[in-house]
Amino acid sequence: MSDARLIALDWGSTRLRAFLLGADGAVLATRQSEQGASTLSGADAFAAALAAVVAEWPALPMLACGMVGSQHGWREAPYAPCPADAGALARDALQIDVRFWIVPGLMHDAGQPDVMRGEETQIVGALALHPELSEQACLVLPGTHSKWARISAGRVTDFATHMTGELYAVLRQHSVLARLMPADAVAAPSSQGFLAGVDAARQDGALGHQLFAVRTLGLFKRLPAEQLPDYLSGLLIGHEIANELKAGPPERLALVGDPALCERYALALGRFGIQAPLQLDNTAPAGLWRLAQTMGL
Amino acid sequence: MSDARLIALDWGSTRLRAFLLGADGAVLATRQSEQGASTLSGADAFAAALAAVVAEWPALPMLACGMVGSQHGWREAPYAPCPADAGALARDALQIDVRFWIVPGLMHDAGQPDVMRGEETQIVGALALHPELSEQACLVLPGTHSKWARISAGRVTDFATHMTGELYAVLRQHSVLARLMPADAVAAPSSQGFLAGVDAARQDGALGHQLFAVRTLGLFKRLPAEQLPDYLSGLLIGHEIANELKAGPPERLALVGDPALCERYALALGRFGIQAPLQLDNTAPAGLWRLAQTMGL
Repeated sequence: MSDARLIALDWGSTRLRAFLLGADGAVLATRQSEQGASTLSGADAFAAALAAVVAEWPALPMLACGMVGSQHGWREAPYAPCPADAGALARDALQIDVRFWIVPGLMHDAGQPDVMRGEETQIVGALALHPELSEQACLVLPGTHSKWARISAGRVTDFATHMTGELYAVLRQHSVLARLMPADAVAAPSSQGFLAGVDAARQDGALGHQLFAVRTLGLFKRLPAEQLPDYLSGLLIGHEIANELKAGPPERLALVGDPALCERYALALGRFGIQAPLQLDNTAPAGLWRLAQTMGL
Repeated sequence: MSDARLIALDWGSTRLRAFLLGADGAVLATRQSEQGASTLSGADAFAAALAAVVAEWPALPMLACGMVGSQHGWREAPYAPCPADAGALARDALQIDVRFWIVPGLMHDAGQPDVMRGEETQIVGALALHPELSEQACLVLPGTHSKWARISAGRVTDFATHMTGELYAVLRQHSVLARLMPADAVAAPSSQGFLAGVDAARQDGALGHQLFAVRTLGLFKRLPAEQLPDYLSGLLIGHEIANELKAGPPERLALVGDPALCERYALALGRFGIQAPLQLDNTAPAGLWRLAQTMGL
């Protein structure tokens, strides 16, 4: 523990993950709690959740990213405007007390504003771990609200959010499409159903129209019921990718996030001619380490 | 009552509407029940619901359209394939007993099948009431699952379903977009918020991306909370229209269905250069009358 230098906190809506980092940014220990930002209300509740998760660790500088800095979080951290690099994010960090800071979110405003919170830190981490991405790259962070970030000369120049994961969840659970599907999650995801959905999305139809095919393909038994959730997933992910690649494939593309979900995106990207993109698991600790260094913590 | 000739039944998922029709198809009386097809299970339950609603009327031939003929309805009526006219629908009607028939649904199969049940009868009614639509027209039937039907020489040549109304409902109630909106329905719909959504849709972005703007416009207070539901509605309806008008505006376009919803579509269509389209309220009774005549009932 004497080697420990920083407590890095990846504090999202549903979960708090804490990392004890050593002198070179290496993860020495991790702790996890279900006290995500959406489960807490008021500064005292946040402070107690933090104290509980780091109780056994030494008193070190702490840096947090994610929804902990949102309007309904501990305290609202600002959004840094695009283009932004690690230096800009470090400058806008919000100090909560003598040894605790929250990383700002990132905003891109092209008429209609777009925002991220937490992903900006994962991006910093990805660029720290893979400097070759800094020059020119497209980083894709799949999830409830997927982010497509364009990188140029070490800065995030712009990004777009797609509500892909959330659309899947609400349609899977609450729409007429759910009726023909198995109620529970399917044990073995069907890459056949998934790729059929991706291929449909590549045909450039309206999403609101193509979604109805999830129903009719089930109705006419052209797809078995257990493949319908994967078809829906492929359709939504395919639409996201088709739209982001309209201007042509980027020179470098990397996927950042949950390995199973990244694998799904990699499979879909293959249908668009992008083979075996770089895949990175949670890069938030690396990002928090890099930002802490930039801040001089 | 001695003038009565037919009992016409518009029997959807959530409601049963019965019309007593005179010699010229005029509506002599109406009855309504909440016993929609989705609330009933088994032929006996359907038979009882029907008996209750027509109890005070004379024993006449009865013709029904809608979800009563679906897989989970009274009995499954077939889907007539496109192209189809009133004659084809009449031929495929399903006889339930000596004086009760169910109109078939309509299917269009261009790789991925599309279906309607009930709207085919509204279309027949619209063409009966407005023969000038028979030659060449686009009929739009807005709703939970909006239908865009192309008419040529008196036949439905093809059609497409858009899940616009259902997307609105699930996103309004179950998604992150709901959080910044008033919980209840807004008393006075905002045409300003609605048209801002329509205009955003006209910019040809991805729906899954543009939906996130409903959140950020609320977050940055660029739209008041009470306008956000209308913005969402405009975005979804705008995407539907933009997609269907890709090949250019049709020579004739008519809106068929709930007057308030048709008014909303007419407002949105105006932004696409289509002014004051013909609007028709429920044309199912006229359609059932025309089909009954064709069947010789």
